[in-house]
Amino acid sequence: MYKVQVYITLRESVLDPQGSAVKQSLHSLGYKGIEELRIGKYLELTIDQKEQDIDGLVNEVCQKLLANTVIEDYRYDIKEVAAL
Amino acid sequence: MYKVQVYITLRESVLDPQGSAVKQSLHSLGYKGIEELRIGKYLELTIDQKEQDIDGLVNEVCQKLLANTVIEDYRYDIKEVAAL
Repeated sequence: MYKVQVYITLRESVLDPQGSAVKQSLHSLGYKGIEELRIGKYLELTIDQKEQDIDGLVNEVCQKLLANTVIEDYRYDIKEVAAL
Repeated sequence: MYKVQVYITLRESVLDPQGSAVKQSLHSLGYKGIEELRIGKYLELTIDQKEQDIDGLVNEVCQKLLANTVIEDYRYDIKEVAAL
């Protein structure tokens, strides 16, 4: 059994209005030290497959459904975990 | 200058309808090996503060605005980066 942590972020070239809005709120709360803030998605998948199949599966699932590869990048970490 | 990666996830005890819906879609696409899927937020903050102030700032910002600590947990990693 494997736990895969997927990080999906907007590409650097893509504007992040949500991140800018949150940054403005933090500035208005007095947190001026925050120069940049970008918001993305964090997914935790628990996968019951052979280790050699995990990379292929995660890439396929990210490209087909989880990430919009036109405007988003994704990366992931794989950890072995005890079976549920 | 520091880059802080913040991971905000629903508490284990809290139902994740969005995650369940995405899991169902993946199963219908034939990806049966995915046992569990939980969706959270991933934030990247660029902070211009002294190192000893970063932990306090990030905890305060997470508790006050970024995370709903009633139903969400948060954790973060701090990395030093070259000034912008």
